[in-house]
Amino acid sequence: MDNSPHLIGMHYAGPTVRAALVQADGEILEKRETEISPNSMLDQVAGLAKDLASKSGRVAAVGFGIPGLVNRQTDVVIVSQNLPSTVREGLHAELTRAIGLRVELENDANAAAYGEYRIGAGRGVRDIFYMMIGNGIGGAIILDGKLWTGSSGFAGEVGHITIDTEGLECVCGNTGCLETVASAPSIVRRARERLNRDSTSSLSRLGLTKDFTADDVAHQANEGDDFALMMIERTGKYIGTGVASVINLLNIERIVLGGGVMDAGQLILNPIIQEVKRRAFQPCFEATEIVAGKLGNDATTIGAAMLAGDAALSQT
Amino acid sequence: MDNSPHLIGMHYAGPTVRAALVQADGEILEKRETEISPNSMLDQVAGLAKDLASKSGRVAAVGFGIPGLVNRQTDVVIVSQNLPSTVREGLHAELTRAIGLRVELENDANAAAYGEYRIGAGRGVRDIFYMMIGNGIGGAIILDGKLWTGSSGFAGEVGHITIDTEGLECVCGNTGCLETVASAPSIVRRARERLNRDSTSSLSRLGLTKDFTADDVAHQANEGDDFALMMIERTGKYIGTGVASVINLLNIERIVLGGGVMDAGQLILNPIIQEVKRRAFQPCFEATEIVAGKLGNDATTIGAAMLAGDAALSQT
Repeated sequence: MDNSPHLIGMHYAGPTVRAALVQADGEILEKRETEISPNSMLDQVAGLAKDLASKSGRVAAVGFGIPGLVNRQTDVVIVSQNLPSTVREGLHAELTRAIGLRVELENDANAAAYGEYRIGAGRGVRDIFYMMIGNGIGGAIILDGKLWTGSSGFAGEVGHITIDTEGLECVCGNTGCLETVASAPSIVRRARERLNRDSTSSLSRLGLTKDFTADDVAHQANEGDDFALMMIERTGKYIGTGVASVINLLNIERIVLGGGVMDAGQLILNPIIQEVKRRAFQPCFEATEIVAGKLGNDATTIGAAMLAGDAALSQT
Repeated sequence: MDNSPHLIGMHYAGPTVRAALVQADGEILEKRETEISPNSMLDQVAGLAKDLASKSGRVAAVGFGIPGLVNRQTDVVIVSQNLPSTVREGLHAELTRAIGLRVELENDANAAAYGEYRIGAGRGVRDIFYMMIGNGIGGAIILDGKLWTGSSGFAGEVGHITIDTEGLECVCGNTGCLETVASAPSIVRRARERLNRDSTSSLSRLGLTKDFTADDVAHQANEGDDFALMMIERTGKYIGTGVASVINLLNIERIVLGGGVMDAGQLILNPIIQEVKRRAFQPCFEATEIVAGKLGNDATTIGAAMLAGDAALSQT
């Protein structure tokens, strides 16, 4: 009987926290998702963790993924555009106390990259670049099987490479970042701007009745709406522009694309690959596989759990 | 008495080949530079190498830097926009036969990066990103003291990251590459375009009498010509845009900037740093030093020699 310790991975994704009880080999045993009200975040997170821990009885550590820059030396979130409330010195200590287990903070894209590398779309190669395209755009680099996080833990911020020097202002302070045109909220913004001029799409009906989301755009594209399809294809071209730059810079074996925007599947993967082919050096393009992630929404929880497991193991 | 073997480094830079006889510690003992006529390239290169080898009597290997993608497994130049004549399977064998010594082909920016890392502006840190800004824009990544060249040896091509999705066509086939606005020839092109509209600069006098160069623009900027100064500053902003993307992606300890365009000194370094500060994540900016190379024109010859020395040593 396998009695290796279990792990908990959590992903504070914005409105919700996802949590999973995970085996050492990355297999999910149980999962939960709860909408978070910022004032009771600690209690809610602790509740989820304790619930999962009680199902197992042998949880060794908790990995907690956050959409922000995490300084791994100090365990402090330095910047988080989407969750500014996590940017405070005490967070790690508060989580550890509330949960009552060893806690590792990790950038959510780093965690997702590690999950995909260990048991998902990154298996079988030495080096990958992972992109998480959702409410923001993050990324992570894995070299020789290890997260390569740069001199202070922040490497991989592909959402904030400049693809248009005269482009829109980004939440990060820069202008023309990839994230300003290819994240989920920017898909909605671009679609709205267009609909104000041309309301022939079925999206305009959604727009009149409720706030539509990037998922709605992808859904309408799947249903054959030309306008929605064009928005998804255009988004793929922007992402492909960023991927081409990554490939020219890193000549990396495999690019793994995850995050909610990739739920559009082939509709977005095909234009991404076409744009990379058009923009990247041909030998670099040919040396790279560009694939969608396999773990979907579970990438960060699985990866955060496995990273916490590695950290716990290296400590003992 | 030091009787460690000597090395020869060569840099096929376009119109000329530079060659240097180098000690194992990187110190240059002698150097040469010859204008090359493409038809007699092999003879001329062999002549330079034999001349330097005869001064030493104990040359172990020759490193040959080329502005192109070099496949290190096959020793073949795959792509070279500036020197397409080097893109042929037999080149390595021909050079080895003509010179009569062990020869290592290397991308010129990789070689320069290694030179700066070992004895120049890259000393004292673990990881650097090097940019060579001249007739083209190349780059190289050094991690933990070793060239990190990606899955097939092509990593570092920072000149071909897209900074303007709607920008000019590049020699590589892409549009809006950094190289289309920040290389030496593109400085001349941008200056010419402006001068056609506004001929108040002292550059317009150069333009009327002879083809001016990027060096001339830098020289006039140093003399206080406002127009030339603006062109150099604008170039610095473009370079800074690329550097900011590199910093956000790699969170690297130090950026070393070399190549002929950096001969403009502080006039270009200052706007580069300002633009990086404006565009990069603040924590990434603060974690990075941005410095000019120290080896000037000798970076590639020194680095190519030292890489050839390392390769010879690892063979024996």
